[in-house]
Amino acid sequence: MQIRHPYLLFIGDAPDQLAAKTADGVAQWRRHWCLGQHRLPGCKADLGMPDLSIAAAAQAGARTLIVGVANRGGRFSPSWIETMLAALDAGMDIASGLHNKVSDIPEVAAKAAQLGRSLFDVRHPSQEFEIGSGAKRPGRRILTVGTDCSIGKMFTALALETEMRARGMNADFRATGQTGILIAGSGVSVDAVVSDFVAGAVEWLTPANAPDHWDIVEGQASVLHPSYGGVTLGLCHGSQPDALVCVHEPTRPHMRGLPGRPVPSIADTIAAHVAAARVTNPACKGVLGLAINTVSMSETDAHAYLKTVEDEHGLPACDPVRTGCANVVDAIQRAF
Amino acid sequence: MQIRHPYLLFIGDAPDQLAAKTADGVAQWRRHWCLGQHRLPGCKADLGMPDLSIAAAAQAGARTLIVGVANRGGRFSPSWIETMLAALDAGMDIASGLHNKVSDIPEVAAKAAQLGRSLFDVRHPSQEFEIGSGAKRPGRRILTVGTDCSIGKMFTALALETEMRARGMNADFRATGQTGILIAGSGVSVDAVVSDFVAGAVEWLTPANAPDHWDIVEGQASVLHPSYGGVTLGLCHGSQPDALVCVHEPTRPHMRGLPGRPVPSIADTIAAHVAAARVTNPACKGVLGLAINTVSMSETDAHAYLKTVEDEHGLPACDPVRTGCANVVDAIQRAF
Repeated sequence: MQIRHPYLLFIGDAPDQLAAKTADGVAQWRRHWCLGQHRLPGCKADLGMPDLSIAAAAQAGARTLIVGVANRGGRFSPSWIETMLAALDAGMDIASGLHNKVSDIPEVAAKAAQLGRSLFDVRHPSQEFEIGSGAKRPGRRILTVGTDCSIGKMFTALALETEMRARGMNADFRATGQTGILIAGSGVSVDAVVSDFVAGAVEWLTPANAPDHWDIVEGQASVLHPSYGGVTLGLCHGSQPDALVCVHEPTRPHMRGLPGRPVPSIADTIAAHVAAARVTNPACKGVLGLAINTVSMSETDAHAYLKTVEDEHGLPACDPVRTGCANVVDAIQRAF
Repeated sequence: MQIRHPYLLFIGDAPDQLAAKTADGVAQWRRHWCLGQHRLPGCKADLGMPDLSIAAAAQAGARTLIVGVANRGGRFSPSWIETMLAALDAGMDIASGLHNKVSDIPEVAAKAAQLGRSLFDVRHPSQEFEIGSGAKRPGRRILTVGTDCSIGKMFTALALETEMRARGMNADFRATGQTGILIAGSGVSVDAVVSDFVAGAVEWLTPANAPDHWDIVEGQASVLHPSYGGVTLGLCHGSQPDALVCVHEPTRPHMRGLPGRPVPSIADTIAAHVAAARVTNPACKGVLGLAINTVSMSETDAHAYLKTVEDEHGLPACDPVRTGCANVVDAIQRAF
């Protein structure tokens, strides 16, 4: 699976900016792959790039229509379907991060088959994976882990990739969720893989590579998460990380969606994930840096908090949004 | 899903006894549900029960034909298909533990639909599960865990159920693999569940119950297993066990199927699984007993080994086959 760019980002009739967050992520991290946005009447989101008709985007060379917007009630409205059919007619593939498959829309599936276009429902892995072996393979890998879901593991991995590439390091982001896959152009939605094959899928995603090559693997959830811990453990085992970066959001009153369940501490999260990583990589150097999501804090409070956790854990702490992650990449370079 | 008994055990043209191991398990643990066996010419396995024709089994009241035998090359031969069609005609459902689905055989699926019979492909969960919540629920649960795959976690769970029921305790085996499901008449093949839903599937399998009720949950693999650890972690989180029993096979040179990878120690296995269990059940009393698979040892060596690990870990040790598990159930009763 390789999603071809340039992209045209379709955000339909998004009722607000949050509904277009998948497209927002692609626009932020792969701006140079995006020719523009395509919006329908009533759209309240804006990606800050040119509005293009399907025809104009095709004329400019668009290869894939990215469906980067949540659909209300999980339904595809006629205007969405018309847009997709027009994109196929104009020569584009379609890649979607939705739960509902665009390949399940009969007219869209039929036209794609007729014209030889590809449909990528990136939440739904279509390939078969082997069982994981746990065998050590060359190349270096970093996995982002964290104290909860939806706190910035993808963002942190992408920020690390950007910083490492800026330093001339050989680094590739490896996507494990739908937005990440659209950003990377490939990847595996590991939470949709049958449980027996999760570690194997991650081994496939992060294959043997040059000794100085870094895979920066997008983490998911936490091994201490009561709903999704098994997904995360498969990620830890399959990616056999040489180092971890731990992400935390300090203001949550409880784990997301689980009232009454406190967010695990950074220390417990580090211990649990390092133990998991060492099952397949006993040489894992552990957590080398902290990435703190301080979006809900003032500038002063954020910097004070970063200093506090640095002292507490003896690790460099950054907020990839607010401060960049140079200090964490420094630590990675010192360690290897 | 509830597979109806009495059963007729179909072992086809099994080339040896091992090929019929699923049927063997059902015959061993649910002899009173089984009217007999049905064999085809050339069958080299024997379950030690009456050979019955389809007609005779139906006459005697058989409700389900259990396909309890491995099929060579994953193919269904014409004689197997004839047998299944005859069973459906005679009023039986079919339940199969094979990887290939009997519901994918067009003639079998058509006849079952026509006659209103059920087809249970127990390796392939057909229901939808919720995401696990991790919320504490009433009732008590024991999970069997272990140092590797295929060492006796199902056997140990069934032996515990038998011993506890013999003492008048309110205990139910909960099946998580294909043979266990045929033995229990219901269950979930957790390794075939999409990874996001494993903990939720186990919560469904072991629901709220009376305070004195025990679920004895069949374990799978190990959280320290590089291929399947995520499956096991979902089992630990979803079953929120009050106690664990740890299974070990002392003579393996390496983990099954993974040459060069040593079997983790009992101590490391205990620590890893207790930590996992306490994510959803902080009151988990930990491992209360050891179940040692001594099949490859002499009587003298086996008893010496049991004594050694008892002293080393301060826990009662049994071999459910050789010694029964009374001492482990004693420990469970003392603890609760």
